[in-house]
Amino acid sequence: MQLITLTTDFGTRDWFVGTTKGVILGIAPRAAIVDITHEIPAGDIRAGAFALAAACRFFPKGTVHVAVVDPGVGGARKAIAVQTANYFFVGPDNGVLSPALAQEKIKSVRRLENTDYFLQPVSHTFHGRDIFAPVAAHLCRGTSVRKLGPAQKDFILLSWPQPHLQPNGIKGEVVFIDRFGNAITNIENIGLNPLGRLEVFLGHKRLCSVRTFYQSVRVGQAVAVPGSSGFLEIAVNGGNAARRLGLKIGDRVSIRWH
Amino acid sequence: MQLITLTTDFGTRDWFVGTTKGVILGIAPRAAIVDITHEIPAGDIRAGAFALAAACRFFPKGTVHVAVVDPGVGGARKAIAVQTANYFFVGPDNGVLSPALAQEKIKSVRRLENTDYFLQPVSHTFHGRDIFAPVAAHLCRGTSVRKLGPAQKDFILLSWPQPHLQPNGIKGEVVFIDRFGNAITNIENIGLNPLGRLEVFLGHKRLCSVRTFYQSVRVGQAVAVPGSSGFLEIAVNGGNAARRLGLKIGDRVSIRWH
Amino acid sequence: MQLITLTTDFGTRDWFVGTTKGVILGIAPRAAIVDITHEIPAGDIRAGAFALAAACRFFPKGTVHVAVVDPGVGGARKAIAVQTANYFFVGPDNGVLSPALAQEKIKSVRRLENTDYFLQPVSHTFHGRDIFAPVAAHLCRGTSVRKLGPAQKDFILLSWPQPHLQPNGIKGEVVFIDRFGNAITNIENIGLNPLGRLEVFLGHKRLCSVRTFYQSVRVGQAVAVPGSSGFLEIAVNGGNAARRLGLKIGDRVSIRWH
Repeated sequence: MQLITLTTDFGTRDWFVGTTKGVILGIAPRAAIVDITHEIPAGDIRAGAFALAAACRFFPKGTVHVAVVDPGVGGARKAIAVQTANYFFVGPDNGVLSPALAQEKIKSVRRLENTDYFLQPVSHTFHGRDIFAPVAAHLCRGTSVRKLGPAQKDFILLSWPQPHLQPNGIKGEVVFIDRFGNAITNIENIGLNPLGRLEVFLGHKRLCSVRTFYQSVRVGQAVAVPGSSGFLEIAVNGGNAARRLGLKIGDRVSIRWH
Repeated sequence: MQLITLTTDFGTRDWFVGTTKGVILGIAPRAAIVDITHEIPAGDIRAGAFALAAACRFFPKGTVHVAVVDPGVGGARKAIAVQTANYFFVGPDNGVLSPALAQEKIKSVRRLENTDYFLQPVSHTFHGRDIFAPVAAHLCRGTSVRKLGPAQKDFILLSWPQPHLQPNGIKGEVVFIDRFGNAITNIENIGLNPLGRLEVFLGHKRLCSVRTFYQSVRVGQAVAVPGSSGFLEIAVNGGNAARRLGLKIGDRVSIRWH
Repeated sequence: MQLITLTTDFGTRDWFVGTTKGVILGIAPRAAIVDITHEIPAGDIRAGAFALAAACRFFPKGTVHVAVVDPGVGGARKAIAVQTANYFFVGPDNGVLSPALAQEKIKSVRRLENTDYFLQPVSHTFHGRDIFAPVAAHLCRGTSVRKLGPAQKDFILLSWPQPHLQPNGIKGEVVFIDRFGNAITNIENIGLNPLGRLEVFLGHKRLCSVRTFYQSVRVGQAVAVPGSSGFLEIAVNGGNAARRLGLKIGDRVSIRWH
C-alpha cells in the first residue's frame, strides 16, 4: 500500500497540482495520490493546518501526508519530514503540520537537506513540486526518513486557540467555516452530551441548543452538533449558518449547561 | 478491476472528499476512485441524480457508484445499496439514485443496517465517510450485497418531468444547465432526425433549429443538438445559451417538425 | 507504468471529466489518470496550450498527454495523436498541442481515423469522451500509434508571441496569469542572472527588479523571479501582482540590464 495525500493552496486552475503528481509518479509509479484539498486560501497556514488535522487520521497506517502552504518558499524557513507511529508528514516547518502532529506519537523529525532526494534543479518558488513531492515519493517507496537529512528536535508550533472550562460551561471560538457555512469551533465533541440540554452563546446572545444531528430542528433553524471533524459545529438545518448568524473565524462562543 | 465513482455535494474546498477516499482505500487499497463531481449544489437531489444518471453507463461493468446528496443525513431516511445487472449503486434512499436505476435491470435492493461494514463510531452528520464509503469499499472487494442488510422491495422514486408527444412535435422542459451554459432538456436524442428540419420553441417563441453539432451555425447563434448525455440540448455556438437566451431549469420547450 | 494526463476546459461541475475517465478505465483498467487542469476557460486554446506545455515535461517517459480544448468539435478540424521521443500527445489539431510539441522530438503524427479505437456511437459534441479518451487508453495499453490512422506531416502551429533581444535588454509580453495573480511572461529563465541587477518595465514604467524568490522583497512589494514554469514571472510578495499592478495577458514588458 503506497498512499500519499496532498493538502495545498495551489488551486486547481493551473498546472501546479498536476506537475506535483507527475513528479511523484515518476519516482513511485504505484503510489495512489489523494487530494485532501488544494483550495486552502493562498498562504493561509492555519486553514491548511486545520484541514490536514481533520483529515489525516482517516487514512490507513503508513500514509505519507504532504502539506504545502508555504508563503516563505525560497526563504529561510526549513523543510521537514516527520515520522509518527502511524504516518509520515512532509512540508515546510512553518506550523502547517503541527495540529496534525499534536494527535500523533512523534518518532523522528528530519530536516530535508539531502538533495539526492530532490528534483534537480530545485526552483526557488515551487518546493511543492521540487522538494516535498519527490521526498514523499521516496518515503512511499520505503526510503528511511533518516536518509533525508539531519535530525531536528522540534518543529514550529502553530499557536492555536484553546477552549477554557468554566464552572457552568466551556468557552471557545470559531476556528473554521466549511463550505456549507457550518462554523466549526475548537470545542471537542468528547465530553459533550447532547441529551444534557446544552445551550450555545455568541457573546451574551443565545444561538441554539446542542443536538445530535442537523434535522433535529426545523429547516432554517440553528443547531449545534458534535461535528464529523471531532469538534462542535454550529449549523442551520438546510441553510448557511455563517451567513445566517453572521459567524466568522475568531468569534467567541460558549456552551452552558443547565 | 475495482472501481468506485463518487457523486456528491461535498465540494472540494474542505477535507470531506479526501477523508471519504481515505476510508475507502483503508478497506480496498487497490480501488481506483473516480470523481463524477463534488459540486452538486448543497442538498440538490435532482442535480445529483441527473449527473449520476448521465455518467454511470460510461463505466465498466462491476463499478460501484456512490452518490451522496443527503440533506436528511442522521434523520429518518434509509441508506441503500442496489445491485443491478451491470453495477452497484450506494447512497441515501431519497431519490438520488432513482434516475440512474431507471436505466438498469435491478437485481437486489438492500437496506444498509449491518454495522460491521460501517466505520466506527458513525457520526450523525457525515454518512458519506462513515457508511457509504466503507460499504462501497467492501462491495468493491467482493462482499455480497446480501450481507449489508435486509432486502427492500422498492426505493424512493424521484419525480421527474416526462416529455409529451404531440401531433406536430414533442413538449418537454429544461432539466439541467451545464457549465458551458448549454440547456439540457428531457427530450431524448433517440428518434430525433436533425436532417428533418426540427424547430425548437420556448413557449411560442422560436429559438433555433435542431442540427448535428454546435458549429452548424455561425458563432453567437443558437442551435439545438442531440447532446452527449443522450438528451437534446440548446446551445449557442461559442457562447452561453442559458445566459444569452434566458433559459433556466423548468422552462417549457417544444420541438415542432415541418 | 500506464499514465494518462488530462488538460481540458470541461470544468469539474458536471460529469464530463468523470465519464472521460470511465471510458479510459474501461479500456485500460490499470491506467493512472492525472488531471493537469479542467479549468481552462471554455474554448481558450492558448491557455490550454500553455498549461500543457508548462506541465508535460514533469511526467515520466511514456506518459500519454491528452488535451481537449476543442471549440471546433464536430466540425472540420482534425484529431491527431503525436508520438515524440518521450511521450504521446492526443487532441484536436487546432494548435493546443503545439507549444508542448515544440519542446519535443517528433517521431510520428497520425490523424485519428480508425474508428475501431473510438467509443461507439461517436457523439458530435463530446470527442473528449468518445475519441480522445479511448485512443489515449489504447496507446497506454501499448497499441501502436500507426494503427490509429494515416500519417500526417504537420500539425497546426499556434501563433505564439516571441521575445525580442534588444541592445540593453529583452522585450516580451505577459502570456499567462496564474491563480495567485503572478504574471508569467514569454521570457525564458535561461540566460537571466538575477544577481546582475535586471529591471522590469511595463512600457516605460519601471515595475520591479529581478530577484531569486518572492520573499527577496518586503511583503506587498513587486518582484520578478525566474518562475517554476521556466519563464520570468512578475509577482507581489504575499499579494496578487495582476490586480495590484494592473497586469493582463498581452501587456508588453521588458527587461533592461545595467
